[in-house]
Amino acid sequence: MRAVLHVCTTCRGTLPDDDPDPCAPRAGARLLAALSGDAPPGVRIRPVECLSACSQGCAVALSGRAKWSYVYGRLTPDDAAQILSGAAAYAAAADGVVPWRERPAIFRKQSLARIPPQE
Amino acid sequence: MRAVLHVCTTCRGTLPDDDPDPCAPRAGARLLAALSGDAPPGVRIRPVECLSACSQGCAVALSGRAKWSYVYGRLTPDDAAQILSGAAAYAAAADGVVPWRERPAIFRKQSLARIPPQE
Repeated sequence: MRAVLHVCTTCRGTLPDDDPDPCAPRAGARLLAALSGDAPPGVRIRPVECLSACSQGCAVALSGRAKWSYVYGRLTPDDAAQILSGAAAYAAAADGVVPWRERPAIFRKQSLARIPPQE
Repeated sequence: MRAVLHVCTTCRGTLPDDDPDPCAPRAGARLLAALSGDAPPGVRIRPVECLSACSQGCAVALSGRAKWSYVYGRLTPDDAAQILSGAAAYAAAADGVVPWRERPAIFRKQSLARIPPQE
């Protein structure tokens, strides 16, 4: 596996939640559902409880051996296709750094942080 | 080395910069200078150009083998002592997860994101 796409399932999202049912799945769980079943080759989708980016949810992170790690935020289930396309490009890049113009718009505009590769 | 403290040297910071000299060192470089020379045991301080958290700078990240990685923001050189104390606690925690009450206040309040350990 060349990359892991971590999806925060506890994110409440930044958009108002119009579902009146307090037991309805959280925005993060809905994002995970929208992503699941479509993992590109080389990408494993992994749910995680809290990426500590609560005010910027929904959030996902990409990591992989010898690669920079990235965290993205302010995502919704509607972004699933772009997230998967960005994850595929990340998996294919040896150091995880995808050329700027090849990144999906949400990855260019909604990066929360990146961390250098493990030494 | 049990932990690396990555310090973004290109951060301009979120506070107004009162230095009229456009060639003066950036806030991130000043933060690095405030941290350097005092690395706790097990912590290596490493400058990095851009942690992609520009709107939340100054930013630092902590990472280490088999540990969660963390990114913190809105830091200033005045926070150096707290950052170093938090980095020492992080280095000593096998998975990088320091009990909440043992984290410095800036780490409790100014977390931008965290990423699960490498598999």
